[in-house]
Amino acid sequence: MLGLGGSVATPAEGITAEVLVVGSFEELEKRADEAEGKIVLFNVPFTNYGETVRYRYAGASAAAKAGGVASLIRSVGPFSMNTPHTGGMSYEEDVPKIPHAAITVEDAAMLGRTAKRGERIVVTLYMEAHFEDDVPSRNVVAELVGREKPEEIVVLGGHIDSWDVGQGAMDDGGGCVAAWQAVKLMQDLGLRPRRTVRVVLWTNEENGLRGGNGYRDAHREELDNHILAMESDAGVFKPEGFGFSGSPEALSIIRKIAQLLQPIGAGEIKEKGGGADIGPIMKEGVPGMGLNVDGSNYFWYHHTNADTMDKLDPHEMNLCVAAMAVMAYVVADMPKELPR
Amino acid sequence: MLGLGGSVATPAEGITAEVLVVGSFEELEKRADEAEGKIVLFNVPFTNYGETVRYRYAGASAAAKAGGVASLIRSVGPFSMNTPHTGGMSYEEDVPKIPHAAITVEDAAMLGRTAKRGERIVVTLYMEAHFEDDVPSRNVVAELVGREKPEEIVVLGGHIDSWDVGQGAMDDGGGCVAAWQAVKLMQDLGLRPRRTVRVVLWTNEENGLRGGNGYRDAHREELDNHILAMESDAGVFKPEGFGFSGSPEALSIIRKIAQLLQPIGAGEIKEKGGGADIGPIMKEGVPGMGLNVDGSNYFWYHHTNADTMDKLDPHEMNLCVAAMAVMAYVVADMPKELPR
Repeated sequence: MLGLGGSVATPAEGITAEVLVVGSFEELEKRADEAEGKIVLFNVPFTNYGETVRYRYAGASAAAKAGGVASLIRSVGPFSMNTPHTGGMSYEEDVPKIPHAAITVEDAAMLGRTAKRGERIVVTLYMEAHFEDDVPSRNVVAELVGREKPEEIVVLGGHIDSWDVGQGAMDDGGGCVAAWQAVKLMQDLGLRPRRTVRVVLWTNEENGLRGGNGYRDAHREELDNHILAMESDAGVFKPEGFGFSGSPEALSIIRKIAQLLQPIGAGEIKEKGGGADIGPIMKEGVPGMGLNVDGSNYFWYHHTNADTMDKLDPHEMNLCVAAMAVMAYVVADMPKELPR
Repeated sequence: MLGLGGSVATPAEGITAEVLVVGSFEELEKRADEAEGKIVLFNVPFTNYGETVRYRYAGASAAAKAGGVASLIRSVGPFSMNTPHTGGMSYEEDVPKIPHAAITVEDAAMLGRTAKRGERIVVTLYMEAHFEDDVPSRNVVAELVGREKPEEIVVLGGHIDSWDVGQGAMDDGGGCVAAWQAVKLMQDLGLRPRRTVRVVLWTNEENGLRGGNGYRDAHREELDNHILAMESDAGVFKPEGFGFSGSPEALSIIRKIAQLLQPIGAGEIKEKGGGADIGPIMKEGVPGMGLNVDGSNYFWYHHTNADTMDKLDPHEMNLCVAAMAVMAYVVADMPKELPR
């Protein structure tokens, strides 16, 4: 059982209470009169991340509003080998902040079966989750200065922080290394594009996005010169292409460039894309793109102890480097800048 | 980190020592002069179970003979989500009995990388593994008495014990239930074959085979009347057929019966097969067979915390029941007995 970012700790003796198992927010609403004094378990099978993660973000306050003394969620993932999942959550204002934890898919399913049989379930929940005071952290920045228009910038990267489980190899160590290696590849090949290519390993994506916001604030004066921002934060698997957010004119150019990536199967450009860390500068008008990969297994590992180095396939990693390098290089080297 | 069946405990303060990482017994022999006073880690990637499990069985004594104070193995499995694996092991006589534990594939790989970089690794190993005194345990037996030749027996089953990780759903709860349900299915359909069909849930397969040996001893007088012994102990996945050990004449009859299972894809009869629990009576001449399934993922779960109910696919389970029911029924109901 793992605590979730932001959750409060239990008392030292833990919280011992009966468990109410529900399958959705709607079911909790209907059964709100049963929740008083109980630990609410949201036993919600994974459909997709966006849908299911709502219980991680908002489950605690929903349970507290119904009178629950703590809340548990079924870990947010499509496959589990007894692998609890962690991640960010939030409390609504003016609602009691109750402890909130994820249990494994296996344990949640078992409690679900037990409740379905009409048996009473009592759980003792003990957790130490708490916030530490803020400490300084930094984005890591490197660049290959452009040979003709050094003030114009193509920025690419991933985030260097990860959850305190596993090694953060997929989320997002692999993305950081792929971006870094893309720029190193240009240097190794003696390629220096017209514009500056800047790699940024953003900090604090998981817990506040202060790296992305800080980059925007520190570089506000040069945002108009940011030609493109690119992020890899969906794991390092076989790359399929990019999702791009920008003008139709720019999209059309990006699609032409992407044809260079067809031989490795990474040439598909979808409309809409970006990344959490480049979100703040995209809001300021910078065209953005995110590397799309075959993410079938991403949520097996994401935010779990299984997110470790051995899950990265070196060949797929190399393909991601190639995709990012080609896209960043061509955009940085085009005679005319990518239109907004 | 999980202790292994049979391993001794460490002292209360644990064992703190430098780690020697080796990739095989052969490498340990070559580097035996480096092992004195160290914890030996067998960082052996999974090839197949039979090959790789040798390090679990025999690693401790090999390490002790080289002067090691404890031994660790990389968990025996092809895939890991930070999932340690347990199982039986043994000590050679006249060799010091040193603690022996499995670490996850991820941790072993990390220590392997660390050693490869030439860095010194120090581990503190603490484990409480020990033997409890023997207690009584029993095979669970039920039968559908034959309508014409009740003294002739087709026996089928799985083993009811499992390792103290997970729920033992695949190894071998599913096999027990499949055998049980196969006989229940005959009863539900009002089918009573000529011979007796006996389902046995053997005990203590994992740790001594005393259920299988006890069955042989308790039923020694009727072993000549055992027409066939059948076991499911390879997980409950999509069934492919059976492996059969018996005379060529019997094999040919079994292959004809198996044609009934072609419609569900479970009609393939391979030469050689059986199961650990029926091994003792097979040695006494009883023809034996084991249910063969698509075991691609079996060793993902086997002997780990991930061996839980949710891994069983109800449809595949039903197919296993059908395969066992059809085979057991026809052999029990044939006018002439299956020849030895």
